[in-house]
Amino acid sequence: MTATIQNLRDKLGELSDIGATVALMGWDQQVNMPKKAAPGRGQQLATMSAIYHRMATAPEFGDMLRKLNDERDKLSADEAKMVEETLWDYERSTKLPEAFVKELTELDANAFAAWQEARKDSDFAAFQPFLERLVVKQREMADMFGFEGSPYNALVENYERGMTAERLTQIFGDLREKQSALIEKIVASPNQPDIAWLEQDWDEQAQWDFGMKVLTEMGYDLDAGRQDKSTHPFTTEFGLKDVRVTTRFDVKDLFSAMSSTMHEGGHALYEQGFLESDARTTLGSSISLGVHESQSRMWENLIGRSRPFWQHYLPVLKEHFPGQLNDVDVDKMYRSINAVKPSLIRVEADECTYNLHIIIRFEIETALLEGRMKVSELPEVWNAKYKEYLGVDVPNDAQGCLQDVHWSGASFGYFPTYALGNLYASQMFEKILQDIPNLWESIAGGNMLPLLDWLRKNVHEVGRRKKAPQLIEGITGKLPESTAYLNYLTTKYGELYGVK
Amino acid sequence: MTATIQNLRDKLGELSDIGATVALMGWDQQVNMPKKAAPGRGQQLATMSAIYHRMATAPEFGDMLRKLNDERDKLSADEAKMVEETLWDYERSTKLPEAFVKELTELDANAFAAWQEARKDSDFAAFQPFLERLVVKQREMADMFGFEGSPYNALVENYERGMTAERLTQIFGDLREKQSALIEKIVASPNQPDIAWLEQDWDEQAQWDFGMKVLTEMGYDLDAGRQDKSTHPFTTEFGLKDVRVTTRFDVKDLFSAMSSTMHEGGHALYEQGFLESDARTTLGSSISLGVHESQSRMWENLIGRSRPFWQHYLPVLKEHFPGQLNDVDVDKMYRSINAVKPSLIRVEADECTYNLHIIIRFEIETALLEGRMKVSELPEVWNAKYKEYLGVDVPNDAQGCLQDVHWSGASFGYFPTYALGNLYASQMFEKILQDIPNLWESIAGGNMLPLLDWLRKNVHEVGRRKKAPQLIEGITGKLPESTAYLNYLTTKYGELYGVK
Repeated sequence: MTATIQNLRDKLGELSDIGATVALMGWDQQVNMPKKAAPGRGQQLATMSAIYHRMATAPEFGDMLRKLNDERDKLSADEAKMVEETLWDYERSTKLPEAFVKELTELDANAFAAWQEARKDSDFAAFQPFLERLVVKQREMADMFGFEGSPYNALVENYERGMTAERLTQIFGDLREKQSALIEKIVASPNQPDIAWLEQDWDEQAQWDFGMKVLTEMGYDLDAGRQDKSTHPFTTEFGLKDVRVTTRFDVKDLFSAMSSTMHEGGHALYEQGFLESDARTTLGSSISLGVHESQSRMWENLIGRSRPFWQHYLPVLKEHFPGQLNDVDVDKMYRSINAVKPSLIRVEADECTYNLHIIIRFEIETALLEGRMKVSELPEVWNAKYKEYLGVDVPNDAQGCLQDVHWSGASFGYFPTYALGNLYASQMFEKILQDIPNLWESIAGGNMLPLLDWLRKNVHEVGRRKKAPQLIEGITGKLPESTAYLNYLTTKYGELYGVK
Repeated sequence: MTATIQNLRDKLGELSDIGATVALMGWDQQVNMPKKAAPGRGQQLATMSAIYHRMATAPEFGDMLRKLNDERDKLSADEAKMVEETLWDYERSTKLPEAFVKELTELDANAFAAWQEARKDSDFAAFQPFLERLVVKQREMADMFGFEGSPYNALVENYERGMTAERLTQIFGDLREKQSALIEKIVASPNQPDIAWLEQDWDEQAQWDFGMKVLTEMGYDLDAGRQDKSTHPFTTEFGLKDVRVTTRFDVKDLFSAMSSTMHEGGHALYEQGFLESDARTTLGSSISLGVHESQSRMWENLIGRSRPFWQHYLPVLKEHFPGQLNDVDVDKMYRSINAVKPSLIRVEADECTYNLHIIIRFEIETALLEGRMKVSELPEVWNAKYKEYLGVDVPNDAQGCLQDVHWSGASFGYFPTYALGNLYASQMFEKILQDIPNLWESIAGGNMLPLLDWLRKNVHEVGRRKKAPQLIEGITGKLPESTAYLNYLTTKYGELYGVK
């Protein structure tokens, strides 16, 4: 028996190594690769992905897993969990017939190209036939995976196991109503922040240096990672000891790189925090995108947009930009970095309005998959919801329903994880403040490590041992829900804007 | 039949893609990787190398190749060559029993660790038992590969196909005698260059900028490559359109980075110069290390240490280091960059003495393999040869027979390729000057591209269609030999030092 668990570990190590090389190729593509190398890299990625898929779906691998699973009572709890999770992955990845995957891959590639053109021309009609076929395929995929209730449940399971459309509808329904009402009051408030001081040029090197300082003081280990520049910030890992982040700079925007660094830093701390003994196995990875996002959002928003954080870091920032922040005190900084402005583009949305962008997409995705809405109605429905929830008029589809890449890549069920990250972070944070009563004093004193310690023990080291709902319930006593997040928002923004 | 050649192309493409990912991991390891990632990267490299080896030595791959080879008369000339070369690779890589390879890999790892320690302590005795076992294993390996004449022939075939110990003994014998005599005269010459001006600090960024300028003007395509910094300069490729170089800087040494950039640039131009139609096949790669080295040495030495080159680039260099080269004219630069000084360390040797370092190693390697010398005699033999050929006293083994990594890595037969690169380059260059009579005028005018054009057509695009001796013979009408190189050396250094 021991021999077979060792065989499994060897196999998982091999798969993890191949996955790492694919990730390295992806990182290099976005950080270093010369432009003429793109087609060749595409072939290399295809070859390596095929090798990975072949090994991960080999019938003898399935036999090994089923045999181990049948004898789970002879395994330790961790071994049993490792077998269970690996078998889940195996079954998931063998459920789709090869011909279907091939067809979908081709459709994705064509849809992606069509979407790029359509967005450029703001021409939804050019993308519509591709999206129609994608919805059909996603619906077929849901059937292949199998589901109870909404077909959406089969897809969300790819990203957030244990979450359902029904549960999300409930959570998001509550959230939408209250968050919308809050925003309406904020927009109407006469008590708006003064952000004119932000309109300066912010030296890129100084932004880099400040970001690196914060990143290392968050506890990110630069001997087991590095930061580079890329067009779109991201986090990737090639094993526990090589977790890399990227950021980008806008000299007109003081907050952009800073926020992205803390956001990616939060993701990276999670990846650097798995147990060494879980490395190169199924347990040493994240359980869900929502949990992953809870880590990035907690650092970016709950910490990076808090008053205590700026009590410590405003003087540091002033040293990095001599003379440029003379008129800025902690209050002004705190108000400026939390300025609320309902807007059209999800990726540029502020903390307070962000979830509404997600809820709109979730409502549309489920309606499309459940057959309650036609693809042709998308622009109309999209624009109406933006008007209703955020109070903004969508001038064209490029800034409307064509703005995100996700649908062209067939990533239905993905969007909710962004919002769930916010909810999980707030739920966890209530418990964190109970467990570390002086946390804010510590952060105001420049020490963020007690928070990292808590996250290590309660979230990172858990790896894939618990699904997100069970992880949240284990920490807070409650399943995922919106109360903590709404409390956080109304308290913080109520005070900032003098509204209730 | 067509289908089977396509199958072969697919297979070669797949192998090429895997090779590229291994190369990318190696590049990243030396350029970017955080230090704690080393053990994980080691595992990833081992996994990927094993996958590569499994596929490259699979019996069904051999069957495919042999079947194609049996029907070569039905193939085009290029297809037949591709089959022949691939079959050669296949047979070479399947000749060693797996148990032997494993044993050798372990021995290498231990020998490498022992060598590092031994070199640090300058303690040959600590390395001797490892080297003894390595020699035995190399001898066994030669038997497994099979050979005629010297067992060395089986090993040199790994790096320089078609070359033999007998031929090398002849070439190097002639070379050693005449090169040694020339150096003796140079050292005794009263006409020594003034190099005191070099003792300044040379700004790293200015060195980088100058190097990049030369590199791009050599014709290196930065859209299909990039330059980075690493501890040891090297060239690597992940396909025809992604050929990367690295360099290193020493602010005390104006020539170090410049030479290494042109050297690696020469390697990279070769790799960027294979035919697009040969990409991802056996034909689109270098035929030998000697030919590869001929390209790097030609650019580094024949061009980069020529007077016409500096007629154009000295003013450019002066712009990069304002005020630091006021007293330097073309003559002074030309003499300084060609200063000769017999020394102990191969990698620091000047152009004029370099080959003697190689010849010493070749004589020792063959004597060890042919049983004419014992490992225990190495320091004594080494030191005697350095005294005899180069006139220098070796103070300790760290600066003597322990200086190179090659033997600890079981790379017997590798050293000669460095010297052959010099010989090939000089042989080719005689023909180049016939074909492009105004080449030096062109270079003095800042245009090096006619040289690149010639190399593309006559060397790069040949790929693996010709072995080195046939390539050289096809270009010059003569097999590899030392006359051209000796003519070059005696003419150039005779004039520089006023000796004959």
